[in-house]
Amino acid sequence: MVRVAIEGASGYSGIELTRILAGHPGVELVGVASGRWDGDSIRERTGLPGPAGRLCYRKSLLKAELEVEAVLCATPANASQELIPAWIERGVRVVDLSNAFREEACQADSPWVYGLSEHAREAIKATRLVANPGCYPTATQNALLPLITAGLIAPGPLVIDAKSGVTGAGRSTGEHLLYNEMADNHYPYRVGSHQHVPELERGLGRELLFTPHLLPTRRGLFVSCYVPVVSGTSAADLEACLRERYADEPFVQVVSADRALGVRDVVGTPLVRVAVGSTIKAGLARVFGCLDNLLKGAASQATQNLNLCLGLPETQGLI
Amino acid sequence: MVRVAIEGASGYSGIELTRILAGHPGVELVGVASGRWDGDSIRERTGLPGPAGRLCYRKSLLKAELEVEAVLCATPANASQELIPAWIERGVRVVDLSNAFREEACQADSPWVYGLSEHAREAIKATRLVANPGCYPTATQNALLPLITAGLIAPGPLVIDAKSGVTGAGRSTGEHLLYNEMADNHYPYRVGSHQHVPELERGLGRELLFTPHLLPTRRGLFVSCYVPVVSGTSAADLEACLRERYADEPFVQVVSADRALGVRDVVGTPLVRVAVGSTIKAGLARVFGCLDNLLKGAASQATQNLNLCLGLPETQGLI
Amino acid sequence: MVRVAIEGASGYSGIELTRILAGHPGVELVGVASGRWDGDSIRERTGLPGPAGRLCYRKSLLKAELEVEAVLCATPANASQELIPAWIERGVRVVDLSNAFREEACQADSPWVYGLSEHAREAIKATRLVANPGCYPTATQNALLPLITAGLIAPGPLVIDAKSGVTGAGRSTGEHLLYNEMADNHYPYRVGSHQHVPELERGLGRELLFTPHLLPTRRGLFVSCYVPVVSGTSAADLEACLRERYADEPFVQVVSADRALGVRDVVGTPLVRVAVGSTIKAGLARVFGCLDNLLKGAASQATQNLNLCLGLPETQGLI
Amino acid sequence: MVRVAIEGASGYSGIELTRILAGHPGVELVGVASGRWDGDSIRERTGLPGPAGRLCYRKSLLKAELEVEAVLCATPANASQELIPAWIERGVRVVDLSNAFREEACQADSPWVYGLSEHAREAIKATRLVANPGCYPTATQNALLPLITAGLIAPGPLVIDAKSGVTGAGRSTGEHLLYNEMADNHYPYRVGSHQHVPELERGLGRELLFTPHLLPTRRGLFVSCYVPVVSGTSAADLEACLRERYADEPFVQVVSADRALGVRDVVGTPLVRVAVGSTIKAGLARVFGCLDNLLKGAASQATQNLNLCLGLPETQGLI
Repeated sequence: MVRVAIEGASGYSGIELTRILAGHPGVELVGVASGRWDGDSIRERTGLPGPAGRLCYRKSLLKAELEVEAVLCATPANASQELIPAWIERGVRVVDLSNAFREEACQADSPWVYGLSEHAREAIKATRLVANPGCYPTATQNALLPLITAGLIAPGPLVIDAKSGVTGAGRSTGEHLLYNEMADNHYPYRVGSHQHVPELERGLGRELLFTPHLLPTRRGLFVSCYVPVVSGTSAADLEACLRERYADEPFVQVVSADRALGVRDVVGTPLVRVAVGSTIKAGLARVFGCLDNLLKGAASQATQNLNLCLGLPETQGLI
Repeated sequence: MVRVAIEGASGYSGIELTRILAGHPGVELVGVASGRWDGDSIRERTGLPGPAGRLCYRKSLLKAELEVEAVLCATPANASQELIPAWIERGVRVVDLSNAFREEACQADSPWVYGLSEHAREAIKATRLVANPGCYPTATQNALLPLITAGLIAPGPLVIDAKSGVTGAGRSTGEHLLYNEMADNHYPYRVGSHQHVPELERGLGRELLFTPHLLPTRRGLFVSCYVPVVSGTSAADLEACLRERYADEPFVQVVSADRALGVRDVVGTPLVRVAVGSTIKAGLARVFGCLDNLLKGAASQATQNLNLCLGLPETQGLI
Repeated sequence: MVRVAIEGASGYSGIELTRILAGHPGVELVGVASGRWDGDSIRERTGLPGPAGRLCYRKSLLKAELEVEAVLCATPANASQELIPAWIERGVRVVDLSNAFREEACQADSPWVYGLSEHAREAIKATRLVANPGCYPTATQNALLPLITAGLIAPGPLVIDAKSGVTGAGRSTGEHLLYNEMADNHYPYRVGSHQHVPELERGLGRELLFTPHLLPTRRGLFVSCYVPVVSGTSAADLEACLRERYADEPFVQVVSADRALGVRDVVGTPLVRVAVGSTIKAGLARVFGCLDNLLKGAASQATQNLNLCLGLPETQGLI
Repeated sequence: MVRVAIEGASGYSGIELTRILAGHPGVELVGVASGRWDGDSIRERTGLPGPAGRLCYRKSLLKAELEVEAVLCATPANASQELIPAWIERGVRVVDLSNAFREEACQADSPWVYGLSEHAREAIKATRLVANPGCYPTATQNALLPLITAGLIAPGPLVIDAKSGVTGAGRSTGEHLLYNEMADNHYPYRVGSHQHVPELERGLGRELLFTPHLLPTRRGLFVSCYVPVVSGTSAADLEACLRERYADEPFVQVVSADRALGVRDVVGTPLVRVAVGSTIKAGLARVFGCLDNLLKGAASQATQNLNLCLGLPETQGLI
């Protein structure tokens, strides 16, 4: 049993990580950090039954001199930047869920690896520092990377119309995040300025028009990608490419572009589903992706990466 | 007081029309047709208080030899096709909310007028037969037509990512329309085959990639349009064009592309709101539109058209 | 046209009042007060089309020396207590929607009248100061008062299980009011200490166990009342009593205790619906009531009371 | 590894059972029956990753001569009545989730045991046939049984105001189950005639007034119980009684009657939470209970019972 700990355990992603790692047969969760829940037990705060529920949140795991082999940071980027160097100094493996080290992870000679699990598996196995991808980039890259790699996407901008449930905003307060303001609502936000745009452009190597919208649900994320295809490529070619690429992947499912694609069916699961619209028009194809923003978009992909990093079976604790 | 009647009064749009016309100071609602509610009063079925609530649904208004000056048909297209010739024969003005006569309305020498109120006002005033636009085409054309007319949109396909609340599907049954299947869900539907595509391409005169999605709400519709702009055009130019065009329109509001644009704020109103994203990237602009699919997308636009057709003030009964 | 103004026009009830009075054919809305929206127009903030939308919010109507015949206060109780004496001094009629003067309104010799419209009509017509009832008390008293008056309710405590949509909490912030905390949730709140308990006990003249719960919707309120009946009373007797009492009331509808009773059907309307469960068991009957907490529970009842107070038709502006 | 199978695997409870048993380390899921999904794999229908997802649904497990040690029936009562005798004949242990054998399970000398896990543990260990309780009875009995047993509840009827999410209605169709009819709605149903009333009265040994209502969510169930207490009993006494009784129970949590009690926090978990309102009034106490109707109200309690029946650790596969 590998001893692990969670920084930022009281955020929405941190709670999901706690739930996953508490039930993970290959690791022992020995520390959970949260300033706001300091001193309370996991059970009191989340209802988690069983022995792991007795563990109590602490303000700082570093000060507690906790001995662990790996730490998962579900902290905001600035907190990650502050905490992680000390963990690295102690020789601990780190999976960071924030935006703090993603850019560095894409540079040559960096000790960090960008943890898009299905697309960087060997590099993740070989590193001690994983920068977990953002939720929108996970859905989008899983949908488009194989098509780009296979040379099926023509030059030109990619249009990404994206929608996310409200937990995507974290637990921050603000009048616009009130129930009465968000319920039954739908609107675009951070148009032209979302923090995931550079991550997406790095990952896909393409210029893109990314537009996130609010989805009036708590969880779930959907991307609709409108992409130019090379002349002579059919929708069937695109789907075949994705099916071949993901045939052996347990957590990436290629489905048909109908109701099988709904966010409702991936919420609560470690899956990302992708699909191709059945017609090409004006040289443009539609490629879709969906996932649970707190799981494959955060905590379950972090667990995949932890497993890879520790040499455990990749799906352990997740199925 | 002009005597009017409603065919198809028990569908979701028909109920909204009933509510609007019952409170309209310039018309008297004298007939409401519904097979399923035949014999019941409006009050029993919808709770509408006041004298109009006492009117009872009838299976057929034509057989009842009801004398009216105008009839509004909120019937499915095949029912409209069957009923409307008999009403025309009686010399009655018709506003049809279905898809039945929209194509005909766009042909030269047709007695029908395509009723996009703000864009065909004089023609509607001069006709006796109005084909009311679909909900998606109303939002999309109000967002894009002024920009196309002003020559600001470059050649190339238009990408329309559209989302609609569940009432857009009408009251039809089917397992996928159950609460448990649609709640908290989001997915694309009729990809590449939606019935509004020809209407949109006729209206905009452009090839387009239209992809409707389910929004997990009862009412509300949103379109996100990704369109190529002519070189040198800024987002501010686009917004200025829309603001100038709609400066005097009571029911079209140009807002900034932030939360003011949410569907929640137009549901229950006769408004369509449009906005322009603040940046152009890779030659593409974002233009947004939203409305209540049952009001500006159906019943309130039909009332605008009825008012124009009858020579009443266009906003009567709506504000 | 009677000149009227609204204090507290930017709260959820204030927005509904603004919408109603802007379209009311018997009054002219000449002032709307809001600190947070000071200087903005109604149209900018609420999208209201038409001439009334051009009116701008002001911080203080009293300082502006606005001349009006009546003022409606949708302010919190402490603000009402501060503002209203100055309005009274100017000889203006007042309808207060807060809790500030409800207790005083039930005392002998008070100039205030407790404005449960259907049950105090003559007193409201004769006064210049109306304390508008709370939302829960409006639903509960309309359901139970006729039965108590008719002597059909036996001694013993009344159990009131009540549920309200989230707008009942107003626009206050707080982590528990976030979308992510309230969506899909349901729980009791202020158990044993809700501010409507004294109002209910005064109004019904009975001891009661009142338990409000959150309903995960924006609008709508439902009360399920479990009450002892006098021996020999059947459910049919109770229903007949309600039907007779409300036969001529436009805004109180007696329906059967099935789906006709749902909150969905009263949201957006000025109605309160009441019903009786079809069986008596262990001497207990079930009596239900539902309404829109922002309309019959606040703004539409305030308008009924304004109409009565001004000698206008009671339903004017509401149907 | 104990070989088990599921009858009725495509209903909402059956899907949850499939998910739980596929991940259960002590059992091997070897058969899943469903007429509607006959021939499809679990993975195709539910997305379940991992080896268990490859198992295919069959129309009939009995005809397939499948060898198993236990079968869980998530079938409607009439299907359970038809199928179960044949399974019994084969010497297989049975956990039935329907209403079919609950009454028989409460009779002396019956081979069936009524599986309210925490209250019949030894009997369940000793039997081969478990009638799993209904969702409302599980919440209500866990809330009230310890108080009744301790003699703290006075004579007189118990009032149970209950609310359930829409999955409680199963996957049946019907216009009233459409999204547009149920979203944002709340109403009582089957007032005076719900099938759980006899089960509740048997279980509690008391006459009660039970009134179920729709909660506009997919999952979650809440009961608010208004019960007479013996003179001198305080709310603290009631809470102490529950805390003592459930101190060592992993799946029954006693919480304070505030937001900790919300259905949102038990949905997706095998928990039932109970709480006592902090005041007694007119001799009446409030006792609350909540759970996930598909888990503790169905599939997770069935798994607890299966574990007990097979001699496995009670919480295995559930935490």
